[in-house]
Amino acid sequence: MRVVVVGGGSWGTAFACLAVETGPARLVLRNATAAERLRTERHNPRYLPWLEVPESVEVATLADPDALAGAELVVIAVPSRSTVDVVEALRARIPARAGVLSLTKGLDPATGGRLSERWHDALPGTPFCVLTGPNHAEEIAEGQPTAAVVAGDVDLAARVQERLTSERFRPYVNDDLLGTELCGAAKNVIAIAAGMTHGLGYGDNTLASLITRGLAEMARLGTACGARAETFHGLAGVGDLVATCTGRHSRNRRAGELLAAGMPADRIEGELGQVAEGIWTTSSLLAMAASVGVELPISAEVEEAIGGKPPLECVHALMTRAPRQWE
Amino acid sequence: MRVVVVGGGSWGTAFACLAVETGPARLVLRNATAAERLRTERHNPRYLPWLEVPESVEVATLADPDALAGAELVVIAVPSRSTVDVVEALRARIPARAGVLSLTKGLDPATGGRLSERWHDALPGTPFCVLTGPNHAEEIAEGQPTAAVVAGDVDLAARVQERLTSERFRPYVNDDLLGTELCGAAKNVIAIAAGMTHGLGYGDNTLASLITRGLAEMARLGTACGARAETFHGLAGVGDLVATCTGRHSRNRRAGELLAAGMPADRIEGELGQVAEGIWTTSSLLAMAASVGVELPISAEVEEAIGGKPPLECVHALMTRAPRQWE
Repeated sequence: MRVVVVGGGSWGTAFACLAVETGPARLVLRNATAAERLRTERHNPRYLPWLEVPESVEVATLADPDALAGAELVVIAVPSRSTVDVVEALRARIPARAGVLSLTKGLDPATGGRLSERWHDALPGTPFCVLTGPNHAEEIAEGQPTAAVVAGDVDLAARVQERLTSERFRPYVNDDLLGTELCGAAKNVIAIAAGMTHGLGYGDNTLASLITRGLAEMARLGTACGARAETFHGLAGVGDLVATCTGRHSRNRRAGELLAAGMPADRIEGELGQVAEGIWTTSSLLAMAASVGVELPISAEVEEAIGGKPPLECVHALMTRAPRQWE
Repeated sequence: MRVVVVGGGSWGTAFACLAVETGPARLVLRNATAAERLRTERHNPRYLPWLEVPESVEVATLADPDALAGAELVVIAVPSRSTVDVVEALRARIPARAGVLSLTKGLDPATGGRLSERWHDALPGTPFCVLTGPNHAEEIAEGQPTAAVVAGDVDLAARVQERLTSERFRPYVNDDLLGTELCGAAKNVIAIAAGMTHGLGYGDNTLASLITRGLAEMARLGTACGARAETFHGLAGVGDLVATCTGRHSRNRRAGELLAAGMPADRIEGELGQVAEGIWTTSSLLAMAASVGVELPISAEVEEAIGGKPPLECVHALMTRAPRQWE
């Protein structure tokens, strides 16, 4: 099963290196200069620059007419806000019988809807899955063992699992696409709150309470939308949430720390040099929650912080507005 | 409601300082020398030595015949393996109408049973509760805000909540004593495994996967014993598990790191200068699980590591014996 990864950020680059260990893989970049350097020097100049990309990873640019030639699995590793453009650029080019696997964790900033809906609308006959879980690209690039969740088209999910399973990468199949997708979107918002509390000097007790409340908030939204609660208590939910809220490599946690340090939200991605999806997801997530009558107190404070409310006031509001009843 | 805390370790000392903020409190130590120093110098020489214990905290020794005089709530903050002795020492001394609140997280090493059963057997008419949650004593002593769970006798739980609630401490009542108690015991064992993986150089992806599997293992045991699954997804479960597996102050995580570094289990508490309850809990937990027909793969590897199996082999066994199906 020939894998073609579209998107040369950290996760796309690490994923191509992972995929080539168990079969043929190609990495397609949108930036031609970066692609050329990657092809000749085997390093991604901007992301994971210490990683040597094996010669066996083919490199192409999106403008290359053969970029997707022979693809049996097209892996999408672009930010949520680029998805609309990438869907447009790819819809006529994805080979018949190929499946699409999205690594993007977020919602469509334009419509507030789920990214899977974009793909289903654009390519109604193409099997589609998402891959999520506690998957910091940096650690996967280092060769660390990792588990992940694949959800969506059942047949494609089984083929993705077979194609990618190795000693160090274990994808599990979950039949709850909706829940899996919402976990990936919502956990980045909670991670911003986690970064804010950490940045303000709160300790591990507070962080653990915040993660617990965040998990409850995610599951409340998910089950109200029709997802299964179990998804939120598994790898895609608590697993990815813990990794993103506590991990050294988490950009969304780092975004929260920068907010706590007084940096305006619109300067954070420039500082990080990478996308922090939670910043783009928060308002869509709140709109989705409002549409099903669910309150998301943590996400609401993150939205306020992104809008300029002092993070100390946001965290204080969360503390004093603690739930009345709780397990 | 006069609070008398028995046990002058980190948690007992921090708890007495917390309790005195909202009413009268006394700290009763078993060691007379330590009690004398605490009374005169207002520092606990061995635990949290930087903490100044307010003058308002009365200090007594267990040998003092008036140690429990006037107590309305007797708080037990001793290691699980001392519980039997403390039960014997206190059973005739606890004032009529006083309640008992246990802070101990573990099982009875002698019988493998729950500590609450010991208390109920010894003092059948005395209302009993446990208090648990993400509560590193060091952070509570620093004045950090924290939430906790109180479970057991419904009337006593409500009174404990009212007595202890403050701006920085929020106890929530849970009616599932069994689940709350099992969370507190089982999470320390998972934290040893977390420390082992961290000590062996595994990263945040692996840690998050381990926490997720550990939570599932805890909930499987709990529900088989008759506890509610929700308890494991709340503060007492995921909250305390995350704090203990990721926190800087976690002794059980540190115990796992020392195992990974090659230290024999019987030298670890000497090195820590404190009890690591998980070491005492593991075999009882596995026996309890066997009695209800539940497998605990992570706890089983922790038991092997405590018994001398190289931690690298234990972690490798967990990785290769990863679950077949998973959310």
